[in-house]
Amino acid sequence: MDEKYMKIALEEAQKSFQAGDVPVGAIVVCNDQIIARAHNCKEKNKNAVEHAEILAISQACQKMNTWHLENCTIYVTLEPCLMCAGALIQCRIGKLVYATESEKFGYVGSISNVLDNKNNNHHPIIVKNVCKESSQKLLKDFFKDKRN
Amino acid sequence: MDEKYMKIALEEAQKSFQAGDVPVGAIVVCNDQIIARAHNCKEKNKNAVEHAEILAISQACQKMNTWHLENCTIYVTLEPCLMCAGALIQCRIGKLVYATESEKFGYVGSISNVLDNKNNNHHPIIVKNVCKESSQKLLKDFFKDKRN
Repeated sequence: MDEKYMKIALEEAQKSFQAGDVPVGAIVVCNDQIIARAHNCKEKNKNAVEHAEILAISQACQKMNTWHLENCTIYVTLEPCLMCAGALIQCRIGKLVYATESEKFGYVGSISNVLDNKNNNHHPIIVKNVCKESSQKLLKDFFKDKRN
Repeated sequence: MDEKYMKIALEEAQKSFQAGDVPVGAIVVCNDQIIARAHNCKEKNKNAVEHAEILAISQACQKMNTWHLENCTIYVTLEPCLMCAGALIQCRIGKLVYATESEKFGYVGSISNVLDNKNNNHHPIIVKNVCKESSQKLLKDFFKDKRN
């Protein structure tokens, strides 16, 4: 099931790629229904907060008419940054599934894991390495294209 | 100068108070001009990401037509949470000025200081305790009202 949803998140990531943004996609699922889908639009929209996760969480809150997403799972193609890890706490996401690590910017284990801080008022379930190779390939292709 | 701008951020915070949201206000200043002003709308808009800082940064990016806010200062009435601290790195804010600590949720010194992590690709100037008592009074009044 996690793979099925991650593949849809990867389709979203592809949209970022085409627009010249680092390819990252995110979808939010509740009761086996996709309630939000978004992709990284930071460069396209010239807006620092328009990461895939922020856009997907915002959409999901609008759809559910609440900021409480305890019963939801977010699928992201890349390990969340500091801002997005914090957003997952703000909406009390039930579960985070991500595809691959972000060595330079990831704050769910790479730089550090801010989600396991005991002072946080919420601790989501975390699953990683779902469709890892597909996401890594997309990212590699993007940065290769950019260098050329 | 910092006090003058923080007083305007406090006026924004007052708007959150009136709407039933924890009173937090934020403004972004560039070249002595206010380019964005926002207040916490999380409860009012039932949206987990609508903290004052996220809304102000998003507005500032739109106004400046870039996600680079190196030449800008953000004035916030409360120490940023994890999400908002991360957003300050995303937009590479030049300077953060805040009024008072957030013991339970503050990630710029209270729980920990994520902005001083050497792995981050940006490190803003940080100034605190500007109009501290005014912000503390607003927060105390809010939680007192809420309990009654």
